[in-house]
Amino acid sequence: MPQPVDPVALTADLIRCPSVTPAEGGALVLLERMLSEAGFACTRVDRNGTSNLFARWGARGANRAFGFNGHTDVVPVGDAAAWSRDPFGGEIVDGVLWGRGATDMKSGVAAFVAAAIDLVRETPPDGSIVITITGDEEGDATDGTVALLDWMRANGETMTHCLVGEPTCPNEMGEMMKIGRRGSMTAHFTARGVQGHSAYPHRARNPLTAMVRLMDRLASHELDRGTDHFDPSTLAITTIDTGNPANNVIPAQCRATVNIRFNDLHSGASLSVWLRGMADQVQAETGVTMDMTASISGESFLTPPGEFSAMIARAVQAETGRIPEASTSGGTSDARFVKDLCPVVEFGLVGKTMHQVDERVPVEQIVQLKGIYTRILRDYFA
Amino acid sequence: MPQPVDPVALTADLIRCPSVTPAEGGALVLLERMLSEAGFACTRVDRNGTSNLFARWGARGANRAFGFNGHTDVVPVGDAAAWSRDPFGGEIVDGVLWGRGATDMKSGVAAFVAAAIDLVRETPPDGSIVITITGDEEGDATDGTVALLDWMRANGETMTHCLVGEPTCPNEMGEMMKIGRRGSMTAHFTARGVQGHSAYPHRARNPLTAMVRLMDRLASHELDRGTDHFDPSTLAITTIDTGNPANNVIPAQCRATVNIRFNDLHSGASLSVWLRGMADQVQAETGVTMDMTASISGESFLTPPGEFSAMIARAVQAETGRIPEASTSGGTSDARFVKDLCPVVEFGLVGKTMHQVDERVPVEQIVQLKGIYTRILRDYFA
Repeated sequence: MPQPVDPVALTADLIRCPSVTPAEGGALVLLERMLSEAGFACTRVDRNGTSNLFARWGARGANRAFGFNGHTDVVPVGDAAAWSRDPFGGEIVDGVLWGRGATDMKSGVAAFVAAAIDLVRETPPDGSIVITITGDEEGDATDGTVALLDWMRANGETMTHCLVGEPTCPNEMGEMMKIGRRGSMTAHFTARGVQGHSAYPHRARNPLTAMVRLMDRLASHELDRGTDHFDPSTLAITTIDTGNPANNVIPAQCRATVNIRFNDLHSGASLSVWLRGMADQVQAETGVTMDMTASISGESFLTPPGEFSAMIARAVQAETGRIPEASTSGGTSDARFVKDLCPVVEFGLVGKTMHQVDERVPVEQIVQLKGIYTRILRDYFA
Repeated sequence: MPQPVDPVALTADLIRCPSVTPAEGGALVLLERMLSEAGFACTRVDRNGTSNLFARWGARGANRAFGFNGHTDVVPVGDAAAWSRDPFGGEIVDGVLWGRGATDMKSGVAAFVAAAIDLVRETPPDGSIVITITGDEEGDATDGTVALLDWMRANGETMTHCLVGEPTCPNEMGEMMKIGRRGSMTAHFTARGVQGHSAYPHRARNPLTAMVRLMDRLASHELDRGTDHFDPSTLAITTIDTGNPANNVIPAQCRATVNIRFNDLHSGASLSVWLRGMADQVQAETGVTMDMTASISGESFLTPPGEFSAMIARAVQAETGRIPEASTSGGTSDARFVKDLCPVVEFGLVGKTMHQVDERVPVEQIVQLKGIYTRILRDYFA
């Protein structure tokens, strides 16, 4: 009987693979070797320079196919000289593991890989375990989890439920899981007027007058007051730029960008219509042409609280003593893609130091996380 | 008896002096020589690299001291390749004189210098003629007419009335004189908030939200509806800049500039108090710190219609058949400095092509302008 997989040592090994997006860095090669040895059928699903790994234990298309999703790519180290430890050293000091990816999310990947391998060796489940790991979650994400899901659909591969191992706890281990995410969209506006001299504003048509009116109306508007599972939608102006150095000149145009995080009362399409209507109104009032382009990063989604999230909550409570809040807060994650395939929930460790200098994690959290994932698998296949 | 001075040839000679601010270019040297030969006491009043010329015919401190003010510096040619003629060639083609400064305002200087020299030679006036010409009207104007006036005060020199020879007619020769100008001020605002993630706007404090609110309120406010001699005051937002390329980041600060052209209902000080109050209100509402700096380019001023402006109108009507409108429209000019010394009115030719590529003037306008200035001088000393 092989020894159980040590998730702390595995996380450290993964940290030593310098897999800054889009570099594979050896991380997926290492995981593919371990999973293959444990009996997983592995396929590298690389696309357009992005490396991805698909691994399945058990039969294709099983009635119960539990999925894990995660990523091994990491954000750049930033100012390397500012780190207290080698960001790719994987050092453990006083019970803390240091390095880029320690929380986001080589630890999460190590924990679910370790839990899955141990389970199939000790008590082979009645069903399958599907592991999808991408090398591009921190980048554009166009050829990462999306490529894995495309490949799965084309090859008859399924997951009946999926757990994404991203860090989800703000401060304390076990306090939060994510059952959905708000959507995100960005709109770029360009106001085109008529240039002129500041002394003769009636001969010009000032694009800034129109732009501040539109932006003030957008920022003052209450999109909603939240829903059962979502915070209120928010709109933030992120930049307004003109680049006119001359005080005596009214400029011909200016640009502005707004970012909207929206709940399940809206969609990217409905918000685009609303924004266009607001811009049209200002255009009619001022005579300034308002151009707009909108890009939707992701629609909002929700896996309504039920048996799946209850199962995760039980496992978290058993290991940590905390009942995790079912939240939809925060930014986007690859769960926004997975949700098109099957119910998806996210649970992982404390993300406090993610993307920062001196990213690190107490090793006991990684051990707890493997314990939680193991309980979830046992419960799922019981 | 010397020949009358030809104002067209003199304008062409001045155009051939490449006196782009702050270069003297030979223009003041030429004028000083001519005026000295005609019996004017000339003094170069140079200060901090700016060249200026003071010239007086007759006794210092006379009861009647008619003043002319103008400038020989010109704005840059811009795209030299786009000119149809050499901008410093002074060519006359089909009755039109081409070149930088043809309208703004080497023609005006040539016309009043020619009128003054002819008068003192033909019918020496009972009083004095004072000519002040600066080499920095198009630049900062800190050491131009201001330096001349400082020097005059320090040396007991006076003008009892002053005519500024700037181009004042929008389209037709003779249609407009300026009896005052609106004031001009510029205010720079910096909004300082708290940076944050677009997904968590409640943890940030968005400076753009505050800035667009302030700017919309300023731009929507009616400052006044004009007065007897002035158009309504105007406020123009000239730039708003942030420089934030990241859609998922709420920036820490942004900047904006407004330019106000104001009539005699306001002063730079009263408007500064108003702007600061509006900024304070937005600061109180949003928690975003609003910093402001204001710079006043010139206060509004008026030489109320009376005998002086009537005299100018008579001369213009006699030469052109048009009665000039007494206007206070347009940008600033050095009249804003002269008004502290004596009543000042501006009259010159059609300014349509000033500051443009292919600046040019029909030579007949220069001849008319000399005729008008000559009539004014004769009337003044009659």
